[in-house]
Amino acid sequence: MATPEFTARTLRRLLASGVTTRAERLLAKMPPADVAPLLSDLTGDEARTVIELLFRQRRAALVMRELPPEMLPQLFEALSDQRIADVIARLEIDDLLELVDWIPEDRRAEVLQRLPDHRRDELMKAELYPESSAGRVMTTAFIGLDEKMAAQEAIDSIRAAGDGNESILYLYVVDDRRCLSGVVPIRRLVSSPPSRPVGEIMIPDPVCVRAEADQEEVAAVVRRYDLLAVPVVDVDNRLLGVITVDDVIDVITEEATEDMYHLAGLSDEDRVFSPALISIRKRLPWMLVNLGTCFLAAWVVGLFERTIEQVVALAVFMPVVAGMAGNGGTQSLTIITRAIALGEIEFSTGLRAAGKELAVGLVIGITTGVASAAIAMFWQAKPALGLALFLAMVVSMAVSGLMGAAVPLALKALRQDPALGSGVIVTTFTDVFAFFAFLGIATLMLDRLIA
Amino acid sequence: MATPEFTARTLRRLLASGVTTRAERLLAKMPPADVAPLLSDLTGDEARTVIELLFRQRRAALVMRELPPEMLPQLFEALSDQRIADVIARLEIDDLLELVDWIPEDRRAEVLQRLPDHRRDELMKAELYPESSAGRVMTTAFIGLDEKMAAQEAIDSIRAAGDGNESILYLYVVDDRRCLSGVVPIRRLVSSPPSRPVGEIMIPDPVCVRAEADQEEVAAVVRRYDLLAVPVVDVDNRLLGVITVDDVIDVITEEATEDMYHLAGLSDEDRVFSPALISIRKRLPWMLVNLGTCFLAAWVVGLFERTIEQVVALAVFMPVVAGMAGNGGTQSLTIITRAIALGEIEFSTGLRAAGKELAVGLVIGITTGVASAAIAMFWQAKPALGLALFLAMVVSMAVSGLMGAAVPLALKALRQDPALGSGVIVTTFTDVFAFFAFLGIATLMLDRLIA
Repeated sequence: MATPEFTARTLRRLLASGVTTRAERLLAKMPPADVAPLLSDLTGDEARTVIELLFRQRRAALVMRELPPEMLPQLFEALSDQRIADVIARLEIDDLLELVDWIPEDRRAEVLQRLPDHRRDELMKAELYPESSAGRVMTTAFIGLDEKMAAQEAIDSIRAAGDGNESILYLYVVDDRRCLSGVVPIRRLVSSPPSRPVGEIMIPDPVCVRAEADQEEVAAVVRRYDLLAVPVVDVDNRLLGVITVDDVIDVITEEATEDMYHLAGLSDEDRVFSPALISIRKRLPWMLVNLGTCFLAAWVVGLFERTIEQVVALAVFMPVVAGMAGNGGTQSLTIITRAIALGEIEFSTGLRAAGKELAVGLVIGITTGVASAAIAMFWQAKPALGLALFLAMVVSMAVSGLMGAAVPLALKALRQDPALGSGVIVTTFTDVFAFFAFLGIATLMLDRLIA
Repeated sequence: MATPEFTARTLRRLLASGVTTRAERLLAKMPPADVAPLLSDLTGDEARTVIELLFRQRRAALVMRELPPEMLPQLFEALSDQRIADVIARLEIDDLLELVDWIPEDRRAEVLQRLPDHRRDELMKAELYPESSAGRVMTTAFIGLDEKMAAQEAIDSIRAAGDGNESILYLYVVDDRRCLSGVVPIRRLVSSPPSRPVGEIMIPDPVCVRAEADQEEVAAVVRRYDLLAVPVVDVDNRLLGVITVDDVIDVITEEATEDMYHLAGLSDEDRVFSPALISIRKRLPWMLVNLGTCFLAAWVVGLFERTIEQVVALAVFMPVVAGMAGNGGTQSLTIITRAIALGEIEFSTGLRAAGKELAVGLVIGITTGVASAAIAMFWQAKPALGLALFLAMVVSMAVSGLMGAAVPLALKALRQDPALGSGVIVTTFTDVFAFFAFLGIATLMLDRLIA
């Protein structure tokens, strides 16, 4: 397969020489997901031409959908309001919703004005659902059946629905009030006698989600029950739409990214291809918070300046205690946040999990503490120093294991994102505690350390 | 919905009072994914009874499949070899493969001996594929069609395949040599005139993966092209099996967990519900490595013991430089490893990405460096100390941004897991470099610091 860089070069050459018909043929052969990466290598003018060519093939919307959204503003710059409206008008409602957010604010009203009326109405309706809710991810293109309908009639209704979405996998049975009563996998429909009523084939009371449910919850349901699509209903169980598994995969991927990012104090919009200025703006606030926590640690060390003055070797071992406690805390934190995200915590309980992390921290603290004490005594020839290091490591590793588990569990109990604040809180706490424990113990043992 | 704890209590009461028929009815009403968490709350005897009841309902295998594999050894302890064999014999081959690995080694041969012959053969064949490859995740239950077959005949073949897997979504067209030539979405089949040959309906040259391909690659393909299933072929393009999207979701989830775990130096098998002893055994080796890197940092600090002796305030600010550099490095590392995992790096290039992280680190280093210098001067009333802190922060933040990007990119270029080693290498490097930069600069400026 040709690399994207190679294809991009070919495309540029074709565009530069004005042979757009050949460029068009090249693009026509590529799946949208393969065209998208090329756009980042093109100039504004080139990108505009490519979008025009794709637009003629009715594929511009599909390609735009495949772009990481953080790249959209650049692309929009190269396009007129009318062209943006023409392209996005073809998107399914969930994709349309997401893209609209990325149109620069000063142009958004203009672009929306140029959308067809029915699409604008649809958009306004979808925007009523909360951010990241099922209502915003669902598609409203589904086939609803009456339970008295025969299997063959249902098959005919698929045919009648036309050439649209090939990924229709289930048909939904609704009653007179549009309430969801069952689901019919298309495979089961096909295998049934043509005259059999749909009501006898359907799986009754299917798993469904409420439109207000968070997308993370939707992903959990799909993952848990191995579904290919999940129906979305309102408070009265009326069928509103369907979320398909490809959107769920996007949600799962996005949520995993978010958790990793949050643990490192990163914002979701800070990506590898974001311009440096955006990354700086996104990271700076958190780095200033982090600076504050570092100075808190510095302040704790400052409390013991007199002790360090008398035993400078303490400064040498400070990185050992803090480094080990920080790592232990991060490990416990990672285990617990991931377990919360995957719902694995239901295979244990919060209390049991925190107790276990405490125990693990304690044992690892004792083991590595003995090793550290041995190295320190051999290196500095001061048994008292080894003892202080050992005690500090045991205490701070145990505490950091406990905190690594307790902080995300507490945040979850308070209905906060367990990944978001945990990173800062846990690392600050472990650092501060480790310095305090080590230097505090050393101060208590000062006579023996100096001797 | 009743909580798992509540249902577990009810179940226990029913089991204790010997009313197994009611327990059986309770279990029959629950989806397998909801039964699984209960098992962790039961004693060995209770779990054995539940498995017996589920086995009578032919659902024991489905429930076992839903358990986190780390919990299987406990469950196996409660079951006889014969019972384990009876249960796992019902699993699809990819699930069977995974479960077999968790049978304690001393019982594995016995259990396998009790499997039906054809299943044991199937297992041995599947085990020939490399660990985590497509060949191990695929199911061999698919429908292959001849391209001359009429649409109606194809539909009949679905009916003939019986009531098995309801999730068949695509049918595959193969030639005389069993080579894959096209794919027919079941929905398209249903919408086509009954007499139309399959060869005219099919999508030719479908996206497929090789049996040896890594499961991560398979997940990337499914995510990229929004597929619901992907055919698996051998080197001659012969169709071997199919990987469905529910397995891909498991792979995506697993790979995300792995990446997060690797960044924190954790082993995949160390879960929230693993016994503490297992977690300790898994974490200890890495913690000893980490101890080594901490002592490396301590050694660097030790080189400057004389300097610290003269200016004890340096010990106070060490945590600031190391803490900030460590965080900056982790942020760059997280951005780049995630971009590599999601294939987003193709929207940029390695060189551009590393350059950007360097620039971001530099700017954030300058900003937070100015803030730190101001605080340090105000606190310690020593302008020279502020200057040393500022210079050290600028240099070490820039370098840690660069390293955070360069290390995973280099590991990837060497075909190593970019997440696995990066965490240790980057944090060690940033720590060591930060201490070296800060204390080195301070030593050079020693006259002005003492003055």
